[in-house]
Amino acid sequence: MLLWIDGQCGTQVPAGDRGLAYGDGLFETIAVLDGNPSLLPFRIARLQSGCRRLSIPLDVDALVRELHRFGNELGTGVAKLIITRGDGVRGYAPPAEASSRRVLIGSPLPAYPSEYADEGIAVYACRTRLAEQPLLAGMKHLNRLEQVLARAEWTDRRYAEGLMCDTGGRAVEGVFSNLFIVEDSRLVTPSLHRCGVAGVMREALMSTGPCDVEDITIERLQAADEVFMCNSLYGIWPVTEFREHRWLVGAVTRKMQRICRQLLEESA
Amino acid sequence: MLLWIDGQCGTQVPAGDRGLAYGDGLFETIAVLDGNPSLLPFRIARLQSGCRRLSIPLDVDALVRELHRFGNELGTGVAKLIITRGDGVRGYAPPAEASSRRVLIGSPLPAYPSEYADEGIAVYACRTRLAEQPLLAGMKHLNRLEQVLARAEWTDRRYAEGLMCDTGGRAVEGVFSNLFIVEDSRLVTPSLHRCGVAGVMREALMSTGPCDVEDITIERLQAADEVFMCNSLYGIWPVTEFREHRWLVGAVTRKMQRICRQLLEESA
Repeated sequence: MLLWIDGQCGTQVPAGDRGLAYGDGLFETIAVLDGNPSLLPFRIARLQSGCRRLSIPLDVDALVRELHRFGNELGTGVAKLIITRGDGVRGYAPPAEASSRRVLIGSPLPAYPSEYADEGIAVYACRTRLAEQPLLAGMKHLNRLEQVLARAEWTDRRYAEGLMCDTGGRAVEGVFSNLFIVEDSRLVTPSLHRCGVAGVMREALMSTGPCDVEDITIERLQAADEVFMCNSLYGIWPVTEFREHRWLVGAVTRKMQRICRQLLEESA
Repeated sequence: MLLWIDGQCGTQVPAGDRGLAYGDGLFETIAVLDGNPSLLPFRIARLQSGCRRLSIPLDVDALVRELHRFGNELGTGVAKLIITRGDGVRGYAPPAEASSRRVLIGSPLPAYPSEYADEGIAVYACRTRLAEQPLLAGMKHLNRLEQVLARAEWTDRRYAEGLMCDTGGRAVEGVFSNLFIVEDSRLVTPSLHRCGVAGVMREALMSTGPCDVEDITIERLQAADEVFMCNSLYGIWPVTEFREHRWLVGAVTRKMQRICRQLLEESA
């Protein structure tokens, strides 16, 4: 397994790292295709925003060079990048001298069944709700116990993903995906200002054409013409089953899948 | 620095640990006095509860033996214990084969000014709110970005602690302490079923006599006869200043400080 700590081969991090102590950091899960980290401009934008919000220093140019070097060694696979606030074993206060640590972990691309994209997926209705925390909403930070609890709710392989609502009952996202619905050919994705992760594939898709960002109740989701989920590793999965509701794979979803493939090809 | 990983001397954890990846674990900050981990029964109870809620396996007897061995080597100081779900680099789903990892980090007792306990403290009003997540409320888990953001709000050394409210505006706890108020000699501490950490000193104090657990609005806090904060390292600090409000150190607070000292002496 390819593993770098701060740009050097290494398999371990100091036990006093604040990422371990407090989840004090961010991460990215990057599809690397033939040495190229995909959707890099979107990733860098999200990392810059997250680091700014958490006041974690980030040398973007050095990081981009490192991701390319890592991608070249990895070839094709997944590069998981973790950026933490570095060491600091006691006390929540960020150290006066700001620092950070980078962890890069390479692994093979996940082998999802091709039917998920072709024929659609059944989505589990998670009971675990997302707490509403505007100060952390949108960020891909390391505080992920809600996702761990939600993903532990089902083991039935019939479900490829789980849908998470916020504590107000609004549909927000999948456990590891973002959500889109289609209403009268209009694309809508949930607002993420209270909670949720602003996924890189979501951002990339939104950059290609009109898409409204709105609160989406479960009732509204269930009444939608089409529903799909996306992330930057698997692209787009049409949702064909959620609770007692069934959908056919719609024309807008198919169009967005073509756009998604193009995005990944262009970026790689 | 004394540092053990799974009972062995070691300074690093595998980069694929789920504690780092997702904050998937729990921690305890234990005052060790002359080799004795203080308030151990309360700690073990909290750890057992937390591990049960997160489905992390815990061998309590082995852990207690390890804490005593570690305490003996440390002498007097702080033992920070981190328990994670162990390795698992990709995917939120807990591994089918449940495992865990223990990290023990020794450090000196923090040197708080003795005036904090004697004369009371000024408490900062944090703008960072605690999100309401009943599934995680009470646990001392590793998802602590809210505390990191809250503690980063002030650098003025005049403030020894910061008070955190939940998103509903209720006073819940300090950044690293629990909160008590006194109304007509009656002891009240905030309910922690929506958010907050059920501190070990809070539990220990509650075990010694009557104490009501209720929602406490900021207005109610400000109208209280006495206010104090506690944790298991510093004991009890009377609150004498919060926003424009001033308190004298009251008789109930002094009585609770005596009880607190007794608890620490008995447990050590």
